[in-house]
Amino acid sequence: HFTNLREILNKVLSRHQDLKTDGFSLDTCRSMVAVMDNDTNGKLGFEEFKYLWNNIKKWQCVYKQYDTNQAGAVGRAQLPEALRAAGFHLKEELCQVIMRRYASEDGSMDFNNFISCLVRLDSMFGTFKSLDQNGSGQIKVTIDDWLQLTMYS
Amino acid sequence: HFTNLREILNKVLSRHQDLKTDGFSLDTCRSMVAVMDNDTNGKLGFEEFKYLWNNIKKWQCVYKQYDTNQAGAVGRAQLPEALRAAGFHLKEELCQVIMRRYASEDGSMDFNNFISCLVRLDSMFGTFKSLDQNGSGQIKVTIDDWLQLTMYS
Repeated sequence: HFTNLREILNKVLSRHQDLKTDGFSLDTCRSMVAVMDNDTNGKLGFEEFKYLWNNIKKWQCVYKQYDTNQAGAVGRAQLPEALRAAGFHLKEELCQVIMRRYASEDGSMDFNNFISCLVRLDSMFGTFKSLDQNGSGQIKVTIDDWLQLTMYS
Repeated sequence: HFTNLREILNKVLSRHQDLKTDGFSLDTCRSMVAVMDNDTNGKLGFEEFKYLWNNIKKWQCVYKQYDTNQAGAVGRAQLPEALRAAGFHLKEELCQVIMRRYASEDGSMDFNNFISCLVRLDSMFGTFKSLDQNGSGQIKVTIDDWLQLTMYS
């Protein structure tokens, strides 16, 4: 459940003083649970949690690697490269939009924003792929599906 | 900007002691700005803010009306009716999903969750409509559009 997820994540954060972060807010955790909760039961199952956990470990390594100023955050200049290292090759325009949504005003991204950004990115790629079964690069979405997909996220 | 929006909203909340709320988190405000920021410049323009403000005033009236137990929150039983009163006629399944994402464990929704839920709902209806120009009830979305729409929200 999202309150448990928050506890777990913030406990892990407290052991890593080198990561710049305000901690994960309740709303961020709700959003992460929703985005990853494929069976929409409101909770992360064991497999869903394991998947998240492995990703966080992987992305934490990327984060530390691209915190090149040792500032505890990934700077504006490093961010596109850090997202690529995390496995996401994004167009310039999307990078800009992501920074606007997740980075602070100076363009740097702290740990909780970095993780919640990647959780969403990974999940939205997955959702698109699962809807684009013939690999056409285009999906058809009804209003019901659209609302369900965008509201539960 | 989202920090200003947070200040404004929480100032308004502090004048309404009858609304049950933890206040708007920074992440919730970022999300609301992104969802409403049609020109994707990272800020709400005057017209965008006015639109938001008028909606909040309207939805606050709905909220108070459906806080039937005077508990300062809209209860699980009142929620579908409250969403209808706010102008959204949703299917049962979508209502369930929305409660899982925005309500607390007992199914009641506090003021900040009620507002951020409605802001997103209103915006996602609007996005769909603007993409479904011939009114077919179905939209075609490419991966680029999909990521842009779901990541900036």
